[in-house]
Amino acid sequence: MPLFDLPLEELRGYLPDRDEPADFDAFWSATLAEAREFDLAAEYVPYDLPYANVDVFDVSFTGWGGHRINGWFLLPRGAQGPLPCVMHYIGYGGGRGFPHDHLLWPSAGYAVFVMETRGHGGANNGRPGATGDPHGSANPQAPGMMTRGILDPSDYYYRRVFTDAVRAVDAAAAHPAVDASRIVVGGASQGGGIAQATAALHPAVRAALVDVPFLTHFRRAVEITASDPYQELVRFLSTRRDTAEQAFRTLSYFDGLNFAARGRVPALYSVALMDDICPPSTVFGAYNHWQGPKEITVWPWNNHEGGGGYQSEEQVRYLHKLFGES
Amino acid sequence: MPLFDLPLEELRGYLPDRDEPADFDAFWSATLAEAREFDLAAEYVPYDLPYANVDVFDVSFTGWGGHRINGWFLLPRGAQGPLPCVMHYIGYGGGRGFPHDHLLWPSAGYAVFVMETRGHGGANNGRPGATGDPHGSANPQAPGMMTRGILDPSDYYYRRVFTDAVRAVDAAAAHPAVDASRIVVGGASQGGGIAQATAALHPAVRAALVDVPFLTHFRRAVEITASDPYQELVRFLSTRRDTAEQAFRTLSYFDGLNFAARGRVPALYSVALMDDICPPSTVFGAYNHWQGPKEITVWPWNNHEGGGGYQSEEQVRYLHKLFGES
Amino acid sequence: MPLFDLPLEELRGYLPDRDEPADFDAFWSATLAEAREFDLAAEYVPYDLPYANVDVFDVSFTGWGGHRINGWFLLPRGAQGPLPCVMHYIGYGGGRGFPHDHLLWPSAGYAVFVMETRGHGGANNGRPGATGDPHGSANPQAPGMMTRGILDPSDYYYRRVFTDAVRAVDAAAAHPAVDASRIVVGGASQGGGIAQATAALHPAVRAALVDVPFLTHFRRAVEITASDPYQELVRFLSTRRDTAEQAFRTLSYFDGLNFAARGRVPALYSVALMDDICPPSTVFGAYNHWQGPKEITVWPWNNHEGGGGYQSEEQVRYLHKLFGES
Amino acid sequence: MPLFDLPLEELRGYLPDRDEPADFDAFWSATLAEAREFDLAAEYVPYDLPYANVDVFDVSFTGWGGHRINGWFLLPRGAQGPLPCVMHYIGYGGGRGFPHDHLLWPSAGYAVFVMETRGHGGANNGRPGATGDPHGSANPQAPGMMTRGILDPSDYYYRRVFTDAVRAVDAAAAHPAVDASRIVVGGASQGGGIAQATAALHPAVRAALVDVPFLTHFRRAVEITASDPYQELVRFLSTRRDTAEQAFRTLSYFDGLNFAARGRVPALYSVALMDDICPPSTVFGAYNHWQGPKEITVWPWNNHEGGGGYQSEEQVRYLHKLFGES
Amino acid sequence: MPLFDLPLEELRGYLPDRDEPADFDAFWSATLAEAREFDLAAEYVPYDLPYANVDVFDVSFTGWGGHRINGWFLLPRGAQGPLPCVMHYIGYGGGRGFPHDHLLWPSAGYAVFVMETRGHGGANNGRPGATGDPHGSANPQAPGMMTRGILDPSDYYYRRVFTDAVRAVDAAAAHPAVDASRIVVGGASQGGGIAQATAALHPAVRAALVDVPFLTHFRRAVEITASDPYQELVRFLSTRRDTAEQAFRTLSYFDGLNFAARGRVPALYSVALMDDICPPSTVFGAYNHWQGPKEITVWPWNNHEGGGGYQSEEQVRYLHKLFGES
Amino acid sequence: MPLFDLPLEELRGYLPDRDEPADFDAFWSATLAEAREFDLAAEYVPYDLPYANVDVFDVSFTGWGGHRINGWFLLPRGAQGPLPCVMHYIGYGGGRGFPHDHLLWPSAGYAVFVMETRGHGGANNGRPGATGDPHGSANPQAPGMMTRGILDPSDYYYRRVFTDAVRAVDAAAAHPAVDASRIVVGGASQGGGIAQATAALHPAVRAALVDVPFLTHFRRAVEITASDPYQELVRFLSTRRDTAEQAFRTLSYFDGLNFAARGRVPALYSVALMDDICPPSTVFGAYNHWQGPKEITVWPWNNHEGGGGYQSEEQVRYLHKLFGES
Repeated sequence: MPLFDLPLEELRGYLPDRDEPADFDAFWSATLAEAREFDLAAEYVPYDLPYANVDVFDVSFTGWGGHRINGWFLLPRGAQGPLPCVMHYIGYGGGRGFPHDHLLWPSAGYAVFVMETRGHGGANNGRPGATGDPHGSANPQAPGMMTRGILDPSDYYYRRVFTDAVRAVDAAAAHPAVDASRIVVGGASQGGGIAQATAALHPAVRAALVDVPFLTHFRRAVEITASDPYQELVRFLSTRRDTAEQAFRTLSYFDGLNFAARGRVPALYSVALMDDICPPSTVFGAYNHWQGPKEITVWPWNNHEGGGGYQSEEQVRYLHKLFGES
Repeated sequence: MPLFDLPLEELRGYLPDRDEPADFDAFWSATLAEAREFDLAAEYVPYDLPYANVDVFDVSFTGWGGHRINGWFLLPRGAQGPLPCVMHYIGYGGGRGFPHDHLLWPSAGYAVFVMETRGHGGANNGRPGATGDPHGSANPQAPGMMTRGILDPSDYYYRRVFTDAVRAVDAAAAHPAVDASRIVVGGASQGGGIAQATAALHPAVRAALVDVPFLTHFRRAVEITASDPYQELVRFLSTRRDTAEQAFRTLSYFDGLNFAARGRVPALYSVALMDDICPPSTVFGAYNHWQGPKEITVWPWNNHEGGGGYQSEEQVRYLHKLFGES
Repeated sequence: MPLFDLPLEELRGYLPDRDEPADFDAFWSATLAEAREFDLAAEYVPYDLPYANVDVFDVSFTGWGGHRINGWFLLPRGAQGPLPCVMHYIGYGGGRGFPHDHLLWPSAGYAVFVMETRGHGGANNGRPGATGDPHGSANPQAPGMMTRGILDPSDYYYRRVFTDAVRAVDAAAAHPAVDASRIVVGGASQGGGIAQATAALHPAVRAALVDVPFLTHFRRAVEITASDPYQELVRFLSTRRDTAEQAFRTLSYFDGLNFAARGRVPALYSVALMDDICPPSTVFGAYNHWQGPKEITVWPWNNHEGGGGYQSEEQVRYLHKLFGES
Repeated sequence: MPLFDLPLEELRGYLPDRDEPADFDAFWSATLAEAREFDLAAEYVPYDLPYANVDVFDVSFTGWGGHRINGWFLLPRGAQGPLPCVMHYIGYGGGRGFPHDHLLWPSAGYAVFVMETRGHGGANNGRPGATGDPHGSANPQAPGMMTRGILDPSDYYYRRVFTDAVRAVDAAAAHPAVDASRIVVGGASQGGGIAQATAALHPAVRAALVDVPFLTHFRRAVEITASDPYQELVRFLSTRRDTAEQAFRTLSYFDGLNFAARGRVPALYSVALMDDICPPSTVFGAYNHWQGPKEITVWPWNNHEGGGGYQSEEQVRYLHKLFGES
Repeated sequence: MPLFDLPLEELRGYLPDRDEPADFDAFWSATLAEAREFDLAAEYVPYDLPYANVDVFDVSFTGWGGHRINGWFLLPRGAQGPLPCVMHYIGYGGGRGFPHDHLLWPSAGYAVFVMETRGHGGANNGRPGATGDPHGSANPQAPGMMTRGILDPSDYYYRRVFTDAVRAVDAAAAHPAVDASRIVVGGASQGGGIAQATAALHPAVRAALVDVPFLTHFRRAVEITASDPYQELVRFLSTRRDTAEQAFRTLSYFDGLNFAARGRVPALYSVALMDDICPPSTVFGAYNHWQGPKEITVWPWNNHEGGGGYQSEEQVRYLHKLFGES
Repeated sequence: MPLFDLPLEELRGYLPDRDEPADFDAFWSATLAEAREFDLAAEYVPYDLPYANVDVFDVSFTGWGGHRINGWFLLPRGAQGPLPCVMHYIGYGGGRGFPHDHLLWPSAGYAVFVMETRGHGGANNGRPGATGDPHGSANPQAPGMMTRGILDPSDYYYRRVFTDAVRAVDAAAAHPAVDASRIVVGGASQGGGIAQATAALHPAVRAALVDVPFLTHFRRAVEITASDPYQELVRFLSTRRDTAEQAFRTLSYFDGLNFAARGRVPALYSVALMDDICPPSTVFGAYNHWQGPKEITVWPWNNHEGGGGYQSEEQVRYLHKLFGES
């Protein structure tokens, strides 16, 4: 991939206009209030594969619409006192995978709460999922999740997902082994987009780890990249041509730019300059709107894999430092 | 595409074992009975583009689960007496498109009732759709429709679709311009699979036009083709490896082989020998099980486009002859 | 496909210089005069598939060089008085297909005269053709039609095609069911390019429907798109490097920019902003040169499929309005 | 490419039935007689780039239909007495290229007469061509040469090419520097197919060098390979479905199997076992029918590149030995 | 990917002939003896990222030719007594990646010793490597490692790698935290091939975990798959055609079939039936030759990803059972 | 390929900054001095295939590190007096091929000395090679040659290659049939890059023929093209992210910009404007820095094939003129 977006110097100052509906906050307040009327009913079932130094639980809780959402919860065995907890949201297409995919944080001394993205995990052979999306779509959709319910903010797929993510924080905060004042949201790509939204929507979040976030700056993304999943939108718009403004109106309730503008906690972002899945200008657009203390790691030669394991280590160091550890 | 399936001589005699659950008929009886508890409430709204010699209606009716299903209904203007009616079911990914996509049958003197396949039509720029699938999926799914609800026959996507198709026949049969004794089901690929199922499920069907049918002989299909949409199943099975038998059990309620074995009316099939989407052995497998009078057109040099416009003309001639017309 | 050409605001004002040979009009006058020395000998053979409300004829006439050109001629059955007639020219690679591919206009109350593009229709399984191009090429050519005879305007393939198109109008105008004062030329892509040229070359043309036209603004096209068929030119130029100026001189007699500049009748254009086959600047280049009354439909999210069925309905409305009907 | 055709042991014995029209020889006799009514008018224009030890001529002569055919003629400078001459026919898509592409034979002590394949050489940037095909096609065709005129043996493209090739031998045999009793035909792929035909059609040919020949065993080729150019036939047959038997009848006049069965002179063949352009069974099918003394070089790991430069050296050795040289 | 290899029933009994040089054992004895003359000089440098419940070391030791080989060594913190140790060998193209990629085994109570494959890890952005291959290749090679030194067993790349792997076992066995009687070799693809070889070459190995092994049954692999890395061999053989027998002779010293036939310890294999990188017959070929107690997990719907995380859990259970733990 | 780099007018003036290490000349002086301590030991073995008018030798000599380098040496037979000699360096991936691939220069009256690029020629079936690279790489590398030893200028692959190229000139200059005052270096792509370097490094070079040179202006190349081999660098940098500056420092010793700035002899360059392998700005960057008399041939419609045979003829004319011949 050659460089194809703005030069780095311009990216650093790129602050795009945001398209924000007047009732953005009201929409989300109502959505979350409605979801919280369901009993959270978090369950933690011990996992049957014996591990030696980590405790693993198959977790489930009630998300949007009363639907059960699955995940993993891992703790370093024998930890003293409540632990900081990393909420881990998952990239597009993947399920929760296996507990052993999530050993980094417990090995580093943190709890990790992995939340599945409903409906994903059915076609990623490395990351199988367990959670369906029992809600359908009032409109015909492009294959994938991007256009499910896109003609109405109330029906849109990511309304359910972001709500699930907030409820997951509720669940983690209530777990006795977790220090509710040290909950961190994180993820890459779709997971980064969810983390970005959750940081804005849940007051208990203490920090955010946002890697190459998806679901951000939709209008620019669909104009400058030919790659999925943003192209799901283009395929839909090229088909249901009469709905473009309606669709963009829906998206304005879910655009990472608007969540970033509500970000008040410390955030560690990452961006890759050759990323044609989540182009760098869409990432910097959000980062530059973020209101809290912030840092960004720039990976000049990488595509959407972004910082990968390098970034994971950056994150461990970042949290160690933030929480005064090690 | 080279030839890759059995030689034509073997195809002509290929009669595979069928995997049929004991309660196959009970399952469908219960499903249809439940659907018929909803008021059909067929509506025919005149279409606003003035045509000179055809009457066009934007049709909707209540399908599975009380959901509204859209379509088109076209009649040759000024026809005398009730007309034979062709039910037209649509291929994978397409919506109903435009009325002018469906002028063949009214021009040939027939009514045509075009039914949308719920949820499709969101990413086919030539065939936009209007009908969503408000029901979701209890399991994570591969993008597309093949694995939506696949872990339970009651939840499976095509249960809703086949039920919609039966209800569409109910609607057509009740229309005053239609001769309910001359209803014909037809379609290509997914549309052929739906037609095949509907011919078995609705006693009013008088004949079937089944082109290169999809949704037929699943187990062989997934072993011999690398092409979508059958590969949606493989991607799911490669991910949710623990569910293979459960998934195939669900599919046994929807397999075209089992519907074909219940086919009693005259049928005109078509098959393409270089078809790697719906391989010829899966088509002949159904055709050879069909119990009614039957003919099959073999296209030796074609892939999944099958007979295309040639086959459409074959079908007009076939129905003209069947109904003693022209 | 991301956006890759000029922004829409610039496109609206884009008026490129035209490269027009001094004897452009003389070239075409002589060409047409020569062609008209052949007896047109239009024949209309009734088609054997019985239709109920449309009359279908297998039409042929003498085009350039005395060669017979095939097509379809369809009329709404029982129409009163001479009808307006749409000349339908076909896109690259396609033949005339089947009569039922052309039912839109007769259903809307118009005659339609479908002309085959000589030599095409041999490798488009949905649109078979019947007309060869008995004339060869004095130069070696790239596969396809773009470089056939490209080293001499008199030998160039599209000289024959545009002449055929003019003679087709002669044929339609002479048909007793056609109102010769209401002949409209139309088509998409190559068909749009032919319509554009024919509108300039035949005084009887009353209006033009030009969708995503090909054969227009060659020099820019070959510099900004890597897609066929424009790339046929690049492959030729990369091989016969010594002939570039000679080839571009030939093309200047066939460039849609020069025909558009002679366009005096009402025209409805369409353009797609993500079209990499016929890039939007090449379309706007012609549209902005068009001298008659004009409108353009802009499809922001589409590639070369352009407006598809949406545009067809636009065209029906446009002609209904132009001819004061419905 | 994996192995995909018959195993080598079966290939060695593979002797397919030939489909030969009763008037095969009469067809070719008449064709050649007609062509020989045109004055051959071979011209040899010295090439303007000075070479030190080879004489280069831009050659042209009258081929089928009175059309001028171009080529190169190269001689080792200062050779004593008439030389054996290799007729070099060119692969699909290529023109004659440059004189320096053909230095092997003069450097080895032979004359070489390079004949262009009419119409090719317009889109191969390494091998530009100079010769057009002024004859067109009575039928619509697939892009490329395989289906030009395919509905009538008299109109078929390769009738013109094979005739040109025979006339090229006439020209070489008449050149004072050539020993007419030592003319060898050779080529790879299409060039191999032409050489094979010419060896059967011209009595003066003394030996044949046939590498991975194309235009041989059409019916099997179209069934087992998905690669061009054989797929040009499949695209045509998938479109003009009504013409399959007519097309195969035409091809029977041009099938290498039938020419091979008339091969009486010594022949050196080559075949590549991973060749999906000209599959090994089509090559062995011809080789096994060849009636003269014969050898075949088997390249087990190669695709259609076949023996490449290795085979060229084999050929030099083969001719040196045949002619008792070096 | 459809099924393309032998049916499962045949695979279970597939026992191909082995091509084993007479001096196979002598070759390896001499190779290992020579390597052991270098001081092993294993170094364990504590890793600078603080982990909470695992100890991480950047390990290096002297492998073949005195070259330093890098890896990771991880131990569950605070373990009692010497631990069983899993030697983890890496798949083609990958480096050692990050310590957090290898947390499974320490979390399950085992030590893990990750050995880099020299020279890999330069183009796998998720798994960077640190170890070069300071030895070159006496022959020209295809890009990649498969043909480096292939013309001489002593020069062949995998001679160095397998020797490194044996020396890594030497290093692990000597570590005070490791129970030298419970060393297990494991890996997937190339890692599986290395494990298979090491199990045969090092008497201290107690068990083997061999997933979809590469470097096994070369001659069949190159005939039935078109996928890399086996295709590196085909590209080389298609180029250096004169060397095929020499190359296969070299490969016979490295073929997994020959190592499997020397496998005496318990082994857990896995195979994927749609694997076109390491086709199932090549895996079963080795498995069926394995002489020790053995089990094989068959993944019917997977390609080369094989069992993935499912298989990892199988392996934990397998070792827990083997060592009577948990 | 569309145009994607700067417009031609800007290219003609494009003079990028050069990143040149202070010890550039010292580095190369020391490297060459060290190499010249090895005995050159050039050997010329007559080739066994008898040619009539050219003498062919299998040449070898001692290059960098004492390694033997192979090539061909061809002379027009019976030439009078010492001849000018063209050093021919080969493009990426190719070996020396066959003597008959190199007949142009001897046919034109020049000696040609073909030098293999060590290690290449193992996967180019048309151009097999004979020379390995017995030196390895201290760092892990991306497949291919671009990153072999890239972390240290002394270890970098092209240090060995450029040194071999200088020593090849030493060998040619010492051959009795060669006029040491008329040695010309030439090549395309990688060969052009080697020629460019050798012209700067060897005082005996009299002229340079540099076609679409590779290994030039690395930093721009990796930012504007997605094509190999420059992408080998990107893959490495995306993996070994910590090494970017170290890698670019190494590359600065090998960048064609720096060699071009030392070019004092007459040079004939070529560039292709649609070249995405060696983009035109990288070529013009070097050309514009070249200090000697210079010409450049611009191929506007070509990709990396550049001028091909056209350019070869240009070169013959250029040298004929330079040396006052013909």
